[in-house]
Amino acid sequence: MYEQTIRQIKPISKDWLKRARTRLDNLTKPRGSLGMLEEIAARVVAIREEERPSIAKKEVFVFVGDHDVVSEGVSAYPQDVTGLMVKNFLAGGAGINVLARSAGAGVSVIDIGMKEDLQDAEGLVRKNVRRAAGNIARGPAMTREEAEKAIIVGIEMAEKAYNDGTVIIASGDMGIGNTTPSSAIFSALLPADVADVTGKGTGLDEEGLRHKVNVVKNALEINRQTMDDPLSTLAAVGGLEIAGICGLFLGGAARRMITVVDGFISCAGALVAMRLNPAVKDYLFFSHKSSEKGHGTFYEKEGLRPILDLNLRLGEGTGATLAMQIIEDAVKIYTEMATFEEVGIEPGA
Amino acid sequence: MYEQTIRQIKPISKDWLKRARTRLDNLTKPRGSLGMLEEIAARVVAIREEERPSIAKKEVFVFVGDHDVVSEGVSAYPQDVTGLMVKNFLAGGAGINVLARSAGAGVSVIDIGMKEDLQDAEGLVRKNVRRAAGNIARGPAMTREEAEKAIIVGIEMAEKAYNDGTVIIASGDMGIGNTTPSSAIFSALLPADVADVTGKGTGLDEEGLRHKVNVVKNALEINRQTMDDPLSTLAAVGGLEIAGICGLFLGGAARRMITVVDGFISCAGALVAMRLNPAVKDYLFFSHKSSEKGHGTFYEKEGLRPILDLNLRLGEGTGATLAMQIIEDAVKIYTEMATFEEVGIEPGA
Repeated sequence: MYEQTIRQIKPISKDWLKRARTRLDNLTKPRGSLGMLEEIAARVVAIREEERPSIAKKEVFVFVGDHDVVSEGVSAYPQDVTGLMVKNFLAGGAGINVLARSAGAGVSVIDIGMKEDLQDAEGLVRKNVRRAAGNIARGPAMTREEAEKAIIVGIEMAEKAYNDGTVIIASGDMGIGNTTPSSAIFSALLPADVADVTGKGTGLDEEGLRHKVNVVKNALEINRQTMDDPLSTLAAVGGLEIAGICGLFLGGAARRMITVVDGFISCAGALVAMRLNPAVKDYLFFSHKSSEKGHGTFYEKEGLRPILDLNLRLGEGTGATLAMQIIEDAVKIYTEMATFEEVGIEPGA
Repeated sequence: MYEQTIRQIKPISKDWLKRARTRLDNLTKPRGSLGMLEEIAARVVAIREEERPSIAKKEVFVFVGDHDVVSEGVSAYPQDVTGLMVKNFLAGGAGINVLARSAGAGVSVIDIGMKEDLQDAEGLVRKNVRRAAGNIARGPAMTREEAEKAIIVGIEMAEKAYNDGTVIIASGDMGIGNTTPSSAIFSALLPADVADVTGKGTGLDEEGLRHKVNVVKNALEINRQTMDDPLSTLAAVGGLEIAGICGLFLGGAARRMITVVDGFISCAGALVAMRLNPAVKDYLFFSHKSSEKGHGTFYEKEGLRPILDLNLRLGEGTGATLAMQIIEDAVKIYTEMATFEEVGIEPGA
């Protein structure tokens, strides 16, 4: 399933892009005057290969995993906050719940690598692959097999969404300590200096940040010998939720869905997915530039421009859910606006 | 009414801001991790002076005016497109109609300075002050009395919204040629060099832009002697719709409404309003940075950060309407998220 999904992903059609741009230029507005909304709409048309795409069902997938690297003192919060926040998600009180309700999107919470074994609960998908990623400063996060298994969980979530008629999917993450493995992935796969892709996470001070940079360096050093391709890099210095997110993006691209990438952690998953098959990029909508240092480095190096820049750094899918509404509006512009011909205006410049 | 409204506007309460920030810091997220959403929410609470503000009714006011300066060749479209686009607004086929429907906002179209005398139509507010602004390259746009009258039309729209129970209002504009008077206003009131605040509008080429810069310079030169305060500057080189937008912002601030500023043209109206009473700024939410050259100059000089940056340059209220949704989401975050105490987590960093 893993190999097959990666092979299935093809670049989007240039013909459909062109066709979409022709219509956009005939809508009652100066050419290009809706800027990024027009780029988004054209790409949606080319992804969906539909004359009038609709965005009926929307779902945010929040992948949850723990990280034993928190024992190195890289996070402002203790590890058990992961489980407490999941309970908050399931009760509907977290940021992602509020924003998803507002956007009309469903929320699925996936235990893919939590330390705590939560009981069955409405809205919780139990797909635990491993009870926390290992301490990457001392050894690997997981085995190659576990990484592949976690990616498949993500692919399965995309498949499930596809079968439910969902058209737009978004990633989200929860996992105390997960900016540390994300920084390690960025450093290894962009590549980039550790200091350029490592930030303060949920709230470290300057000294805490210096220590975290050293922890990431140690993680890359100690795992160096096993990191010889994107999958082994993910296994060595990643996290279960990052692997799940990577799988969601692979599955979303394979099923030609509109796939929205949340912030720093989700971009680490996106980077692994794009290294596994560069065509994935055509299906991804990068939602926002977070205030986490290093996120800008990722966008610059990959030549990407995110939709929003609101200094968010919460994760959970909050940025992706805000951007979903912009994407939906872009599609409505494309499908609902009148053309110049319809109102009797010469197109002009 | 004009003087009284300006006097009525007071800075927002620092106590309410502080109270809002205390609640934001107790919500289940790292402190400050929702970035600009938190700043927006705090300001809404302080504007409304409500523990749990609601954003029930939303309305976009599109002010329409013509500009005889188009006879100087400053626009890519002919003057009669203003009327054709108004018919498009009334038929529901324009960009603003699509985005307002999506945001659940009403649209009011106000003829405040159109050349064409449209008949009564559903959704059209007939408040024409003058049939087009004069050619500012040859003389004044309007008299001081007309400018004040147009501002009062805007104030009346805000009053009407207030009386209808509307909580969030947004500006929009339509008027072929209206980037030219906007550039003149920015140059005079920021102040700034004409070249730094003049762009290609709906689609001029490089030569067209050079010519437009000269037209704006001529307008400022020929009207210089009558431009001695914000109101006389607006009368000399402005436009009827810019005056109406200015009035909407004054009225919105006076009535403590959440007041959303669209793009380049609306910012010219906002600048006049802020020069009439600097406290207006507390009530304004600047929706986006457009791709029109000079918009960035305005934000930099005034020390403002807009919510979105999507390369829009359509006007009509399209950027403001997109930002309305972000503002609404920010308020929902404030009112609906659980606190740390409720879920049993120590607040942390």
